[in-house]
Amino acid sequence: MNDPSQNAILLIHCPDQHGLVAAISRFVSGNGGNIVDLDQHVDTEQGVFFMRLEWELASFTLPAAEIGPRFAAEVAKPLGITWRLHFSDERPRMAILVSRLSHCLYDLLARWHAGDLPVEIPLIVSNHETLRPVAERFGIDFHHTPVTPENKPEQEARQLALLADYGIEFAVLARYMQIVSGAFIAHYPERLINIHHSFLPAFAGARPYHAAHARGVKVIGATSHYVTEELDAGPIIAQDVVHVSHRDSVDDLIRKGRDLEQLVLARAVWHHVQRKTLVYGNRTVVFD
Amino acid sequence: MNDPSQNAILLIHCPDQHGLVAAISRFVSGNGGNIVDLDQHVDTEQGVFFMRLEWELASFTLPAAEIGPRFAAEVAKPLGITWRLHFSDERPRMAILVSRLSHCLYDLLARWHAGDLPVEIPLIVSNHETLRPVAERFGIDFHHTPVTPENKPEQEARQLALLADYGIEFAVLARYMQIVSGAFIAHYPERLINIHHSFLPAFAGARPYHAAHARGVKVIGATSHYVTEELDAGPIIAQDVVHVSHRDSVDDLIRKGRDLEQLVLARAVWHHVQRKTLVYGNRTVVFD
Amino acid sequence: MNDPSQNAILLIHCPDQHGLVAAISRFVSGNGGNIVDLDQHVDTEQGVFFMRLEWELASFTLPAAEIGPRFAAEVAKPLGITWRLHFSDERPRMAILVSRLSHCLYDLLARWHAGDLPVEIPLIVSNHETLRPVAERFGIDFHHTPVTPENKPEQEARQLALLADYGIEFAVLARYMQIVSGAFIAHYPERLINIHHSFLPAFAGARPYHAAHARGVKVIGATSHYVTEELDAGPIIAQDVVHVSHRDSVDDLIRKGRDLEQLVLARAVWHHVQRKTLVYGNRTVVFD
Amino acid sequence: MNDPSQNAILLIHCPDQHGLVAAISRFVSGNGGNIVDLDQHVDTEQGVFFMRLEWELASFTLPAAEIGPRFAAEVAKPLGITWRLHFSDERPRMAILVSRLSHCLYDLLARWHAGDLPVEIPLIVSNHETLRPVAERFGIDFHHTPVTPENKPEQEARQLALLADYGIEFAVLARYMQIVSGAFIAHYPERLINIHHSFLPAFAGARPYHAAHARGVKVIGATSHYVTEELDAGPIIAQDVVHVSHRDSVDDLIRKGRDLEQLVLARAVWHHVQRKTLVYGNRTVVFD
Repeated sequence: MNDPSQNAILLIHCPDQHGLVAAISRFVSGNGGNIVDLDQHVDTEQGVFFMRLEWELASFTLPAAEIGPRFAAEVAKPLGITWRLHFSDERPRMAILVSRLSHCLYDLLARWHAGDLPVEIPLIVSNHETLRPVAERFGIDFHHTPVTPENKPEQEARQLALLADYGIEFAVLARYMQIVSGAFIAHYPERLINIHHSFLPAFAGARPYHAAHARGVKVIGATSHYVTEELDAGPIIAQDVVHVSHRDSVDDLIRKGRDLEQLVLARAVWHHVQRKTLVYGNRTVVFD
Repeated sequence: MNDPSQNAILLIHCPDQHGLVAAISRFVSGNGGNIVDLDQHVDTEQGVFFMRLEWELASFTLPAAEIGPRFAAEVAKPLGITWRLHFSDERPRMAILVSRLSHCLYDLLARWHAGDLPVEIPLIVSNHETLRPVAERFGIDFHHTPVTPENKPEQEARQLALLADYGIEFAVLARYMQIVSGAFIAHYPERLINIHHSFLPAFAGARPYHAAHARGVKVIGATSHYVTEELDAGPIIAQDVVHVSHRDSVDDLIRKGRDLEQLVLARAVWHHVQRKTLVYGNRTVVFD
Repeated sequence: MNDPSQNAILLIHCPDQHGLVAAISRFVSGNGGNIVDLDQHVDTEQGVFFMRLEWELASFTLPAAEIGPRFAAEVAKPLGITWRLHFSDERPRMAILVSRLSHCLYDLLARWHAGDLPVEIPLIVSNHETLRPVAERFGIDFHHTPVTPENKPEQEARQLALLADYGIEFAVLARYMQIVSGAFIAHYPERLINIHHSFLPAFAGARPYHAAHARGVKVIGATSHYVTEELDAGPIIAQDVVHVSHRDSVDDLIRKGRDLEQLVLARAVWHHVQRKTLVYGNRTVVFD
Repeated sequence: MNDPSQNAILLIHCPDQHGLVAAISRFVSGNGGNIVDLDQHVDTEQGVFFMRLEWELASFTLPAAEIGPRFAAEVAKPLGITWRLHFSDERPRMAILVSRLSHCLYDLLARWHAGDLPVEIPLIVSNHETLRPVAERFGIDFHHTPVTPENKPEQEARQLALLADYGIEFAVLARYMQIVSGAFIAHYPERLINIHHSFLPAFAGARPYHAAHARGVKVIGATSHYVTEELDAGPIIAQDVVHVSHRDSVDDLIRKGRDLEQLVLARAVWHHVQRKTLVYGNRTVVFD
């Protein structure tokens, strides 16, 4: 029996071809599912089809456990579809990696605490002790993994072990300020979300606010993206900007930028958790 | 034979029910159509289903003239669907009603002239002679219908006759500054697009910038909406805002507002012409 | 002796007249002060002059305690100037009034904790017990004053006593959801900062997101203002908006609105604390 | 005798020092001038002081022709001030350089025609014949200077001769699509305003919308800047952005970008014409 309050969410991409929408929607309707949300996109240049389909399980005649196998056999395999199936009552387990800045951490914890972010947050990891009291305030385990150039492989191994121990599905780098290795990333492909404090691709790398001030820009931005091996070059999930002027010192840019950073990161995490993001090549489809 | 470069566009709304997407997409796929764009929305509160479907006619086996009747008989009637069919190569005939302010008029004409707005503009109507030279510059017929409280019924009759003579499908009130009567509106339901110079519902009616200044707001806006009998209360198509400060006098608000007005009006007209708007109750679905 | 790292801040308004800038700046320069920030505004319609002047005390020859009296005698009285003097190292004591929603409270506390908001926060007051644990997490006294229509005068008297006991300079209504009486406001003129969850003057009063959804707007907003007797009609300090669409349910508006609310409230509080706000009539001058 | 409706505008920058505001404002007040606008900025990092001062000449006791010499002798020389003097009734002569895209040209001409841009526009220059009809519509001389890699020095010489013949004070590159030489720029330092179709420094150079699409950004922008020898690296006057999504093809980015380009360019030109811009190093002070 399906939980009647539960929805199924199907994320799909495949080469574009005739009849995809009809075939996929027939699978849902034919088994008694009521579609409550359908987002679809075709990248006509590259000929790729994307879809996010959400339907009510209350009236669905297939048990939850059979949906995946049946969809695979009847639809996905014949049509060459890559897919992921989620359920609306999942609460993915999320870790937060931080350094010494607290604003993004507080913002995520406040959203989680208010019930606005349907995740579990069992683990905070940091290369500094600074934010341990924040973790303790929220009753979340805090582990200190002091990374240095010399011990990076060991510390990353410790971090990976922690993530595994806590059953972490995805991790958020909330101004973590450390470059994670390709080996680390390989364990969490499309499951590490970073916030960079500039409107990428401008001002990648260190000290973007100083660079923005030196260039005399009139807008500053923040960018949240999935982490890939190339620094600050992963698929962008969310970006936003704010106007600035000659009156803003570097410190003002940093202050105004903090508000952007926490907002943009929270939006990216929310879309990720709502299973509204799809990555292809170095780009994202973000349904909203 | 269908024009191979042409697409068909179907706009649909109906009571939400199981199997809609499957039934509609099967009609297209089953006749050889390749869906290039599908937007769908369900208003779960009111239980209304909306869809915009665009498909290539190159491979479609039904001739263009038969699509409507066949869709009506096979899909729309059985499922209680309200629909409109358009073709991507249509260039709807649009009139512009103006008063004395030129910025929105120039903006629309410049877009049309650059090929960015796929419409015909055979007619400009005004209650003043002021902008006749602008119409002449662009080689567009200009008719002066000087409305006064006394002669309004006659002048509106003249205007309606002009719109009919020129085969006008829809009209844009580009800072027309006159209230059009319910009788007039009844000839062009959901086909009169107005721009109001405030973020409605704030500051409806006359002199919104003066009212905004007096209230000391920190943002001003502009709103484009379909005209209905109640002043400035029709379904909103597009809105945008800009930040202002204590430094901005009423004249500054008017100047900054002009940029908003022409931008917001152009967006609304573009979405209307792209057949991306659906009206229900006093609200719109605007796909983008 | 002045603290050499300290600045003096003078906030001024008066009827506009010849020679004001010269007279005021001569007072500062003539006593050895180095102006580091000067903001000036003239409301030409109403003939009012506003200024915010910040200068370094390191080289200033007047002791801090004499600045006010000397400025009053030599400049303010002769020219009819209304003024306030502040010092950059003041940390005003701020209370937070809340109800059951935590997002604005968390946001303010996180900013305060990170050192981004130079205030003391000794007191949180609420008509519900809900957020006591948040106060406790941050080690801040929490007082429960359960207001009902019947006991409102007594509870407000208790609240005023608390504010007095804790030496509160100004208070923030962080989604407090209660209307405060004129008697209460009279104790804190221009020192009660509220956040309203709409772009005022649209959707004043209760349930603005429901009203915005019903009206079908394409932008929603938030407004922070000084509290006055007329509900949601006080001088606006900060406003911001976010785009929404037909896809957004009332719940989505509430979710997106929360981000706006905390951001706009934080900006208003920051400007207030930086002594960058001046109220006149029902409007504000907010230097930035 | 001064024209009583005229204002004087003084633009100033110099090393920061004690007493600047007092000395400068005393010059104005001491000669009977009523300051109507004063903007001041100190770059504390580099120790540079900037000011824009506007005062009414109606009551000013110095004749317009003597203001400059007297200010130089009494204030500027003793304090090492760099300055420019303007009068509010000047209508600077502006040329527009275009290529084949019409939107920025139309926008500037519409603003000029409506009286929103207080300039004379006697001359349009282009490397293509395409926009000659637009110039003719507005009764403006159009000169065709077909630049090729081979004839660039000669064509630029022709262009410079045209600018000189028409008494041009500054020129706007309204999507001119040609790189102007250092020799050309040297004739119009800080008087060539370009619009680049990206949020610089991201996507400098050719085809920025294609690059933005390939990178998968979620915002696109436009930047107006003074032209310097290094391509797209001059001092930024104005920038703005718009949100985009995966649904936007390159053509959509180009379409949305056009609106930004004309808006941002118009803002930059407006500020330049209002004498509200100051350049220092590679940055600008833009008072507003």
